[in-house]
Amino acid sequence: MALSPTPTVFPFVSRGERGFLERGMDPVLTWLDTFGLIVFAVSGGLVAARKGMDIVGFALMATVTGIGGGTFRDMVLGMTPVFWVREPHYLVVCLAVGILTWFVAHRLDSRQRALLWADAIGIAFFTVVGTQVGLRAEAGISVALLMGVMTACFGGIVRDLLAGEPSLILQREIYITACVAGACAYLLFDAMGAGEGVSGVVSFCVTFLVRGAALAFGLSLPGYRDKIDRSQGGTGKG
Amino acid sequence: MALSPTPTVFPFVSRGERGFLERGMDPVLTWLDTFGLIVFAVSGGLVAARKGMDIVGFALMATVTGIGGGTFRDMVLGMTPVFWVREPHYLVVCLAVGILTWFVAHRLDSRQRALLWADAIGIAFFTVVGTQVGLRAEAGISVALLMGVMTACFGGIVRDLLAGEPSLILQREIYITACVAGACAYLLFDAMGAGEGVSGVVSFCVTFLVRGAALAFGLSLPGYRDKIDRSQGGTGKG
Amino acid sequence: MALSPTPTVFPFVSRGERGFLERGMDPVLTWLDTFGLIVFAVSGGLVAARKGMDIVGFALMATVTGIGGGTFRDMVLGMTPVFWVREPHYLVVCLAVGILTWFVAHRLDSRQRALLWADAIGIAFFTVVGTQVGLRAEAGISVALLMGVMTACFGGIVRDLLAGEPSLILQREIYITACVAGACAYLLFDAMGAGEGVSGVVSFCVTFLVRGAALAFGLSLPGYRDKIDRSQGGTGKG
Repeated sequence: MALSPTPTVFPFVSRGERGFLERGMDPVLTWLDTFGLIVFAVSGGLVAARKGMDIVGFALMATVTGIGGGTFRDMVLGMTPVFWVREPHYLVVCLAVGILTWFVAHRLDSRQRALLWADAIGIAFFTVVGTQVGLRAEAGISVALLMGVMTACFGGIVRDLLAGEPSLILQREIYITACVAGACAYLLFDAMGAGEGVSGVVSFCVTFLVRGAALAFGLSLPGYRDKIDRSQGGTGKG
Repeated sequence: MALSPTPTVFPFVSRGERGFLERGMDPVLTWLDTFGLIVFAVSGGLVAARKGMDIVGFALMATVTGIGGGTFRDMVLGMTPVFWVREPHYLVVCLAVGILTWFVAHRLDSRQRALLWADAIGIAFFTVVGTQVGLRAEAGISVALLMGVMTACFGGIVRDLLAGEPSLILQREIYITACVAGACAYLLFDAMGAGEGVSGVVSFCVTFLVRGAALAFGLSLPGYRDKIDRSQGGTGKG
Repeated sequence: MALSPTPTVFPFVSRGERGFLERGMDPVLTWLDTFGLIVFAVSGGLVAARKGMDIVGFALMATVTGIGGGTFRDMVLGMTPVFWVREPHYLVVCLAVGILTWFVAHRLDSRQRALLWADAIGIAFFTVVGTQVGLRAEAGISVALLMGVMTACFGGIVRDLLAGEPSLILQREIYITACVAGACAYLLFDAMGAGEGVSGVVSFCVTFLVRGAALAFGLSLPGYRDKIDRSQGGTGKG
C-alpha cells in the first residue's frame, strides 16, 4: 500500500509496512489515534445533522473534520501523497463514522457534553502528533508549533466553513488556545532535552487540562472588544 | 512545456508530449474533457453574475470552478506541479470562458436548464477521470472514490464558498451523490475485471443518469431533519 | 535550515543559505519583502480586531494573511516544503505582528488610510515576486499571471473567508484587478526582452499606481448588475 518512501505521518504510531491491525506494539498510541479520528469524524457528522444535510453530506463532513488537519500539514511540508492516501484506513474510518452518525445522531444529542470531553482528548493527541511531525521536518520551532495547532484544529475550521457556521477562530472559547499551550509545552520539554515520549505526555496533558478547564469552568480568552472596553473603563489598565 | 516526469493527469486524454490540439486519437475524450471544463467555468461565471462581480471576478470564479477539483486531487496525491501548470491550456480556457461569460451571461439566463444538463455531463466525465487517476495511484478504492467525487465537485464547493453562497454539501439535491454513485460503479466494474474503457463508460452513464433523474424529477435525498421527523411520526420506522 | 534543494521562493531576495539578516546585497528588496509581509499581517490582525477575536485569533489571522498567498503558490507549483517551512522567519514575523497588533490595534484605527496605501505597496511587491516565481517554473504566461495575482491576493481572500466577511472577489474595488494589471505589465516587458529588474520595477509601479488611483479617486470596476442596467437603459450600448 505504501506509495513511495515518504516519511511516515504518525511516526510513533505507524512504522514500516505494518497495517492498521498489526500495530500491536503501541496499543495506547494506536488507540488514541483511532479514538481521536473517530471523535473528530463524529463532530463533523453532528454539524451535518445540525444543518440538515443528507447522508453523503454526513460522510463528507466527517471526512473533512477527521483528516483535514493532517492533510494540510502534509501538503505544507511536502509529505505527499498525504497520509490517508498512504494509509487509507484513515479515510475508511471517517466515511464509515460519518454514515453511522447519520443513523445515530439523535442519540448523541444527550451526550454533547461527553463528546466535548472526547474531543479534548482528540485535540490533545493530534497536537502532540503534529508538533512531533513538524519537529522531525527540522524546520524550526515556529513551524512545529503551527503544525501542532493546525493538525488538531484545521479540520474543525474547514468543517465550520463548509457548514456556513462561524469559524473556530471567531469563537473565543479556549480551543485553539489549548493546542497552542500544548504545542508550546512539547517544544519547551524538547528544548530541555526530554525525549519524544516525555514531551508528548506532557504536551498531551497540558492541552487536555487547558481545554478541560475551559469546558469545566466555561473559560474564554478576552476578545478584542472586551479588552478595549476594559481599558476605557476605570480600572486604569490599558 | 512538461516540467518533470510527473504522471499525466487526464491519463486517457493526454499521453506523452502531445499538446492540446494534437490529441487526435481520442477525439471523444478530448471533447468531453474540454466540454466539461467549459461548462464548469461557465457555472463559475454565472455565480459571479448573480453576485454582481466585476470582470476579474468572473475570470477568477470560472477558473476556481473549472480547475479546482483537479487541483485538490493533484495536491493530495502529490502530483505536483498540478495539471494546469503542466498543461496551461486548462487555465487559459477557464480565464477566457470567464471573460466571455461577462459579456453573454444575460443571454444564458434563459438557458439555465440546458446548462444544468451540460453540467451533468461535466460531473459525469470528471468523476470517471478522478476515479481513474485515484486507482492509478494504487492507493485503494476508498481513495479512488474520494478522488472521483472531489475531482467533479470540489471546484463547485470552493466556488460557492468564495461567493458566500450555501455550499453544495449543504444542499440536498442529488449532485455529489450522483458522483458517489458513478465512482462506485467504476470501482465495481473495475473489481470485476472490466477494463478502463468499459468501467469508464458505465461510470459516466451512472453519474449522468442519477444526476439526470434528479434534474428531471426534482429528486433529493432526505435530509437529517426529514429523517428525524419521519421517525417520530406514525410510520413506525425509526 | 534548508530542507532540500527546492527552488528558492523569493528568488531575487534570498539566495543560497543566507539567512534573514545576512541578505545585505539587496537591501531594498529585503525591505520591501519584510514590509509587505508586515503590512499583510497587520491587515489580518485588524480584521481579527473588527471581529472581536482573542489574541490567538489575531496571530492566526495575521499568519494566514501574511503567508497564505505564497503557500498556495508553492503547493500548486510543487515547491514543497513551502517557503515558510524552508525559511521560518516569515512565520515568526507573522505571529509576532499578530500578537503585537492585539496590543496596538486601537491606535491603528486612525491610520486606516495609511495602512491601505501600505497594503498597496505590499500587493505590488508580491505581484512581482509571484509572477517571477511563476515564470521561472517555465509553465507559460497564464500560470505566471495567476501566480502573481494569487501570491498577492490569496492570503486576503482566505482571511475574509475565515472571518466570515465578504470575499475580496465579491468586492468591486480595484484590488485584485491592480495585481492583474501589474502581472500583465511584467509579462509584457518580459516578452519584449526586458530583464527581471526592469520588468519587476515596471510591474511594481503599475500595480501600485492602479491600486493607488482606486484608493485616491474611489474607482471601481463596473459590476455585472451595473452593466446590465446600463445596457438596458437608453445609451444604446449592449
